[in-house]
Amino acid sequence: MTIFSKIIAGEIPSYKIAENERFYAFLDIFPLVEGHVLVVPKTETDNFFDLSADYLADIMVFAQPIAKAIEKAFDCNRCGMSVVGLEVPHAHIHLVPINEADDLNFTRGKLKLSADELTAVQAKILSALQA
Amino acid sequence: MTIFSKIIAGEIPSYKIAENERFYAFLDIFPLVEGHVLVVPKTETDNFFDLSADYLADIMVFAQPIAKAIEKAFDCNRCGMSVVGLEVPHAHIHLVPINEADDLNFTRGKLKLSADELTAVQAKILSALQA
Repeated sequence: MTIFSKIIAGEIPSYKIAENERFYAFLDIFPLVEGHVLVVPKTETDNFFDLSADYLADIMVFAQPIAKAIEKAFDCNRCGMSVVGLEVPHAHIHLVPINEADDLNFTRGKLKLSADELTAVQAKILSALQA
Repeated sequence: MTIFSKIIAGEIPSYKIAENERFYAFLDIFPLVEGHVLVVPKTETDNFFDLSADYLADIMVFAQPIAKAIEKAFDCNRCGMSVVGLEVPHAHIHLVPINEADDLNFTRGKLKLSADELTAVQAKILSALQA
C-alpha cells in the first residue's frame, strides 16, 4: 500500500481539498510554495502515463476547478502543473501557484509550514473552491 | 497570432510528432533534454486551465501515446510532464523524458541541438510511435 493509498484511506491524516470516486486531492505538506496541491488517482498505478486514457481524461477534469481555486486563493500568475513521479510509486499531479519557473523547480528546497499554516492554506483553497 | 499558431499553420517550420483536429505536437527546439516535446491545442487560450474541460480531457488522451513513445525512444525512468506557460500566451504541455527532478527544471540551461540532431530525435520518437 503506497503512502498515498494510506492517505486516501485515512490511515495517514491529510489536508483534504477534494475527493470523488476516482481521485483525491490534498495539500503537499512539503510544498514548493503555499498552495501546492497533489491530485492522486485512487488506483495504485506507478507511472502517470500508464493510467487508462479514461483516468487521464478524468483527472484533468477533476483537477481543473482545484487549479482555478488555487489561482483565486493565492497571489500568482497562474496555476502550474507537473508530473514527476520519481519518489512515490503512485501516479500524481502537482498543482502549484506560480509566478516564475523556479516555483515549479523540484530541485529547490521545500517550505516547512506549521500545522496552523497548512490549515490556513487549506481553508483558503476550500473557500475559493466553494465561491 | 501566437508563435504556436504560426507553427501549427506551417508558417514557422517545426519537427512535427503528431496532429489531430484539435492538437499539434512537435519538438521543443530548446529542449531540457533530448526528446522534449510540446503538445499544443489548436485553439489560442493562454492559461492551460482556462481550456474547456473537454479540451483538458482530450489533450491528455492525445498526449498519452506520445509520452509512451518518448519513454521507449530514450533512456529514461519515465516521461514527465509540466505546464508552466509564463513565456508563450498559448497553453501547452511539456513532455520530457526524465531520470531526475532536474530534468524538469525550467530554470536550468537549455540544450542547443543542431538540425541534424533534432531530426534524429524526431525520427526516434516517430519510430517508437509507429511501433
